[in-house]
Amino acid sequence: MAEERFSKQETLEMRQRLIGQSCRLFYSEDPVKIVKARGQYLFDENGKRYLDCISNVQHVGHCHPAITKAATAQMDLLNANSRFLHDNIVLYADRLAATLPKKLSVFYFVNSGSEANDLALRLAEQYTQHEDVIVLDHAYHGHLKSLIDISPYKFRKLAGQKEWVHVVCKYIKLLVCKLQKKKNWTPACLKDCKLSFQAPLPDTYRGIYREDHPNPGQAYADTVKDLIEEIIRKGRKIAAFFAESLPSVGGQIILPQGYSSKVAEYVRTAGGLFVADEIQTGFGRAGTHFWAFQLQGEDFCPDIVTMGKPMGNGHPLACVATTVEIAGAFTANGVEYFNTFGGNPVSCAIGLAVLDVIEKEDLRGNAIRVGTHLIDLLKKLQEKHEIIGDVRGIGLFVGLELVTDRQNKTPGTKTAAWVAKRLKEEDQICVSTDGPWESVLKFKPPMCFSMEDAELVVRCIDRILTDMKANDLKLQNEDI
Amino acid sequence: MAEERFSKQETLEMRQRLIGQSCRLFYSEDPVKIVKARGQYLFDENGKRYLDCISNVQHVGHCHPAITKAATAQMDLLNANSRFLHDNIVLYADRLAATLPKKLSVFYFVNSGSEANDLALRLAEQYTQHEDVIVLDHAYHGHLKSLIDISPYKFRKLAGQKEWVHVVCKYIKLLVCKLQKKKNWTPACLKDCKLSFQAPLPDTYRGIYREDHPNPGQAYADTVKDLIEEIIRKGRKIAAFFAESLPSVGGQIILPQGYSSKVAEYVRTAGGLFVADEIQTGFGRAGTHFWAFQLQGEDFCPDIVTMGKPMGNGHPLACVATTVEIAGAFTANGVEYFNTFGGNPVSCAIGLAVLDVIEKEDLRGNAIRVGTHLIDLLKKLQEKHEIIGDVRGIGLFVGLELVTDRQNKTPGTKTAAWVAKRLKEEDQICVSTDGPWESVLKFKPPMCFSMEDAELVVRCIDRILTDMKANDLKLQNEDI
Repeated sequence: MAEERFSKQETLEMRQRLIGQSCRLFYSEDPVKIVKARGQYLFDENGKRYLDCISNVQHVGHCHPAITKAATAQMDLLNANSRFLHDNIVLYADRLAATLPKKLSVFYFVNSGSEANDLALRLAEQYTQHEDVIVLDHAYHGHLKSLIDISPYKFRKLAGQKEWVHVVCKYIKLLVCKLQKKKNWTPACLKDCKLSFQAPLPDTYRGIYREDHPNPGQAYADTVKDLIEEIIRKGRKIAAFFAESLPSVGGQIILPQGYSSKVAEYVRTAGGLFVADEIQTGFGRAGTHFWAFQLQGEDFCPDIVTMGKPMGNGHPLACVATTVEIAGAFTANGVEYFNTFGGNPVSCAIGLAVLDVIEKEDLRGNAIRVGTHLIDLLKKLQEKHEIIGDVRGIGLFVGLELVTDRQNKTPGTKTAAWVAKRLKEEDQICVSTDGPWESVLKFKPPMCFSMEDAELVVRCIDRILTDMKANDLKLQNEDI
Repeated sequence: MAEERFSKQETLEMRQRLIGQSCRLFYSEDPVKIVKARGQYLFDENGKRYLDCISNVQHVGHCHPAITKAATAQMDLLNANSRFLHDNIVLYADRLAATLPKKLSVFYFVNSGSEANDLALRLAEQYTQHEDVIVLDHAYHGHLKSLIDISPYKFRKLAGQKEWVHVVCKYIKLLVCKLQKKKNWTPACLKDCKLSFQAPLPDTYRGIYREDHPNPGQAYADTVKDLIEEIIRKGRKIAAFFAESLPSVGGQIILPQGYSSKVAEYVRTAGGLFVADEIQTGFGRAGTHFWAFQLQGEDFCPDIVTMGKPMGNGHPLACVATTVEIAGAFTANGVEYFNTFGGNPVSCAIGLAVLDVIEKEDLRGNAIRVGTHLIDLLKKLQEKHEIIGDVRGIGLFVGLELVTDRQNKTPGTKTAAWVAKRLKEEDQICVSTDGPWESVLKFKPPMCFSMEDAELVVRCIDRILTDMKANDLKLQNEDI
C-alpha cells in the first residue's frame, strides 16, 4: 500500500532500536501495524479492517473530514501563540463554558491531560495554600512527575517514597482486604506499599459497600470524611480531592449517587478543592450528560475540571476550567503562566470543530442508544456465562468484569487477556483490559460506534466464552 | 476581514473574562490582534503587517504550505496513538538520530518542551538513582510543577521553598553580587531567596569571569566542580546538571568554549547526567550546527537532549533523546510510559516536514548569513550608541543588551522596554526583552528572516535610540 514505507518487520525493528521500550505496543507479542483509519475502523498494512473499541481519543471518529478541514484552514491562516489576541481561543472558551455550570468560567488551554492535571495541582495549591492531595485507590492522573506522585496505579510500582507520602493507618484494613486477594500476600507487603493519603475506591461491585448497601454514595463519602479528619489530626492540610468522574484505570467504575456532592462538602470544609478529572470521560461520552461529573446531579459542581483526550480528536489539546476566585488567586502570585502551544488558533479551531461534530451528528444521542444496547446485550451474555461477574457502564463507557467465581469475585485476569487476544486475532476487534487486576474488558470506542458494531462484538465474545467453556479452558488458566 | 469574528474590543473583553489572567498578552497595555501570518510576517485585523522577530516556534515561517500539506495528508489518513506500529514515528526518530551524536539513539516523543524536561528529570533520576539537580542561575525549563522547582527564574517569585531546596552557602557571595545590583538590597533579601543548588551563569559579559579572562569556560566549569563538591559534602547526590545550550531567559547567553565538556566530566564523575535543553535553540537556529550544544565541540555529547518549540512549527511536538543505557534503566523499572498524543502519525509527519524544509530551503545557511549580517549591523550601532552594552549571538539567536553606563553595566531595563514599544508602535516590528533585568532585546525570528528584515530592524532601532538621545530621554527613564 502507498501508505507504507517500511515492511512491518522493518518498522518493528526500527521501533525497538529507536523508541524507548517503556513506550509499549498494543499486543506486544504480535503488534498491529495500522496505516489508515476512518470512523471506528482501523486498517493494517494489508488492508485488513479492525473494529476499534478502545480509541476514546478519536472521539468523533478517526480522521473525521470536518476536523481535518478545520485544522487545514486554520493552519493555512495563522498558528501564532496565545500572547496575541485571537478569536478562536475566546470563542472556544465561550463554547466550553456553555457546557459547564456557570461558576466554571475561566479556562487555561494546554497540550495534554497530564499538563492539565499538573496545572490543576498548581491552582489548588496556590488557592488553598495547602499541599496535600487525596486520591482514589488505583487512580491514574498522568505521566508527569507530579502526577505519578498522586497516581497509586503508578507510584506503587515505582521506588522512592517521598517524604510527604504517607500511609494512613486507618485505611490499612481496607488495603489488607485488597492485598489479600493477591497471591503470596503477607503483612510485610504493607511496608512495601507506598501509599499517599488514600480513600477506598467507591466501587459498588467489589468495594467495601456494595449494591445491597442502602446508600453507598454516602457511605463511601464518609470514608473520605474519616480520612480528612485523620489528615487534619496529623497537622496536615488538604489542597485537593482529585478523582476521575468515572474511574477508568480503576476498572470502569460508576460512582454511586451522592458521592461527589458529599465529598466536595467535606473537602471544602477542610479548605480543599474538588478536582474532577474528565480527561477520559468528558465531551459527551456518558451520553446523557456532556460531563460525567454531571451524572452526580445538578447540585454538584467541582471547583476545577480537567479535560483532554477526546478534546482535539487526536490533536494535542487539553484544558483546565475553574472559577473566577481560583483563577484570581493564581493570577495574584504575579507569575506568568505561559504554555507555548496551549490555546493556539489551530488547536482551538480543531476543538471547536469537535464540538460541532458532537452536536451535528448527535453523538451523545448515539452514545446513549448504542451504549444502552451494548450494555443490554452484555447483560444477557452475563446470564449465559458464569464468568461475567459484572456489566456496568453509561453511554459509551462500558466495562465487562470477568471473575472466576461470582461469590469471591476472583478476578478473571487471564481470561480477560485471552478474550482480548482472540477478539483481535479471530475477529479483528480491538478491546483492552483494565482495572486493578486487568480483569475488566473495557469499551470506550469512537462515539460513532454503531448498533451493528455492538452486536458484532457481543456475538464474538459469546462465541469465545462458549468455546472456552466447551474446551474447559476457563479456570486452569487462572492463577490469581 | 473574513478571518475576524469579533471586534478587537469584544475579543479583548472575552479574553479577560474567559482566559486565566496569568496567561499574559504581548503589549498588555495595547495588545495586538493577529488574524493571519505568513513567513516572518504577522497581519492584524486591519491588514497591518508586523515583522516578527520573536516567534522562534514558527521556525520555518508562519503557515508554511509544506507543513500544512503534510499535516493535512496525514490527518486524512491516520492519527492513532503510538501503541500501534507506524512508520512515521520510526522514520522521524531515525532522521533525528542522524542529526545527533551516535550515542543519542533512543527517543521519546511528547507534546511540549515542558513534558520533555519533566521526562528528562524522570530518566535522570531513574538511571542515577539520585535526586538532586544543578541548574544555572535564572534558568527556565518549563511550566510544570517539577520544572518550576528547577527554574530559578520562576521559583524565586513563588512562595513555598521545598524541603529539598537548598541555599548553597559557598555561592552566596555570587548571589550577593547579583542582588546588590537591585535597588533596596539588604542582607535580609538572601533569606527570601529561594534557591536550589545553583551555579553562576557562565556569562562572559556580566558574569564573574568576563571576556578578558584567559579561559572562562574552564573557570565557570570549575564553579560547578566546587558546587558538586559542596553538594557531596552535604551527603546529597546529583542526578543531573540541566542547562539550555544557549541560556535564553538568562539573557541570550553564549556559553564559553570548553564549558560544557568540563561540566559534563565533573557531573559524570559525581554519578550525574548532563541534560542539554535545546527547546529554544535546536533545529539549526545556531546556523553552523543543528544543535546548539554542538557549538561546544565534537568531543562534547550530552546524556539527554530535550527538544520542543520549533520542532513542529507550532504543532505541539517535543522529544527527549537519550542513550541506550539510560533508556534501558527507565524500561527496567517495569512501568509503561504512555503519552496519549506523543509521537502520533500527524505530529511525526509535521516533524518530518519541518526537517525537510530546513534542508530544502537551506535555513541553516540563511541563519548564518542573516544572523551574521544582523550582528554586524548591531555592532556598528554599538559604536554609535553608548547605551548598547553588548551585542552577542550566533545564527538567528541574537541579543542586544542595553546598559545605562558601560562601566557598571547598569541594566537599561526601561530603555529596552521603550525601544520594544516604539518598534511595535512606529515600525510594526515585534521584538521582546529578556534577561534577569529584561534589558536584552532578543531576536529569535522565524528562520526565513531576510537580510532586508535585519537591515530594517537595525535602522529602526538606530532611529529610536538617536531620537531618545536627542530628546535626552535616556537616563531619567532608568530607575534600576
